[in-house]
Amino acid sequence: MERQKYEEIKGKALALYEKAGIILTEEEKTSIEVVDFGLHNIEVTGLQLITYVNTEKVCAKELALLPNQTCPEHKHPKRDFDEGKEETFRCRYGKVYLYVEGNETETRSAHPPQGDEENYTVFHELILSPGQQYTIYPNTLHWFKSGEDGAVISEFSTKSTDESDVFTDSRIIRVPMM
Amino acid sequence: MERQKYEEIKGKALALYEKAGIILTEEEKTSIEVVDFGLHNIEVTGLQLITYVNTEKVCAKELALLPNQTCPEHKHPKRDFDEGKEETFRCRYGKVYLYVEGNETETRSAHPPQGDEENYTVFHELILSPGQQYTIYPNTLHWFKSGEDGAVISEFSTKSTDESDVFTDSRIIRVPMM
Ligand SMILES: [Zn+2]
Ligand SMILES: [Zn+2]
Repeated sequence: MERQKYEEIKGKALALYEKAGIILTEEEKTSIEVVDFGLHNIEVTGLQLITYVNTEKVCAKELALLPNQTCPEHKHPKRDFDEGKEETFRCRYGKVYLYVEGNETETRSAHPPQGDEENYTVFHELILSPGQQYTIYPNTLHWFKSGEDGAVISEFSTKSTDESDVFTDSRIIRVPMM
Repeated sequence: MERQKYEEIKGKALALYEKAGIILTEEEKTSIEVVDFGLHNIEVTGLQLITYVNTEKVCAKELALLPNQTCPEHKHPKRDFDEGKEETFRCRYGKVYLYVEGNETETRSAHPPQGDEENYTVFHELILSPGQQYTIYPNTLHWFKSGEDGAVISEFSTKSTDESDVFTDSRIIRVPMM
């Protein structure tokens, strides 16, 4: 990703954090992580985030989703030191359409990115408005998408090790773009 | 604590959450925990909080401190299942004066509640403004106090088990008032 594009996306993420009333340090503002999952279509499939803390035990992040942006389907399998990452998502701003394993929701409010449908396999829907949250236990497939206003989500979890995440889409490389 | 007092303190906590831009569900609003630590002087020594999640692995809380209110000195010792609770405090609103083990800070910005000085033994000062945070590892004594505007603090931690906390003040019973 070009630096100019990175700066543009970062600016949009900062605007979302501001709308959510999230106060960041100047250092955090300059180090926002922008992830396009190697798909080079950040507005459609991507994620912006700040990691507040990531110790051996606990991780806390503030995720920002651009309007109608999708974080692609993945799971957090067993690791050397535990059964896999456990995540609680708490919506702080906007709307989050979260899909997990379980009975497929019949009339869903959001859909996978067009053309990528084959890489999405779980469709049990949870809709999170500000103040609402959901806990995803290890090794459970999940993906999520924001509504038209974008979204800000606090993530409370066990230790984060991005390299151990398993994505349904085999093209995905979980490295930050910049 | 009388219900009328509880409702008064709860109202003050809700006003602080609102100032911090924290959005809570109606259910969360009605279930705010108000803790006077058995000292019956809530405005001086006390804590208000909401627990978002507390699984076997991860806990997240939103703490509110009334103006100049102190959360008394304590530590989180070894438990059956781990080395003790680990806590990261992130200031969201107001100012937090946090005291931990280590070199005593010479000119401190806050002091223990008057008359309770004997129950405070660690004086290494950290001052947290909104966006700033600090991680307290297991079995480390700590206490904290808000500034004149009160404070809101996000706590990211391992599993919370209040009954295993050890307070320097032996009078303290860690049970919610209501
Ligand atoms: Zn995940
Ligand atoms: Zn503590």
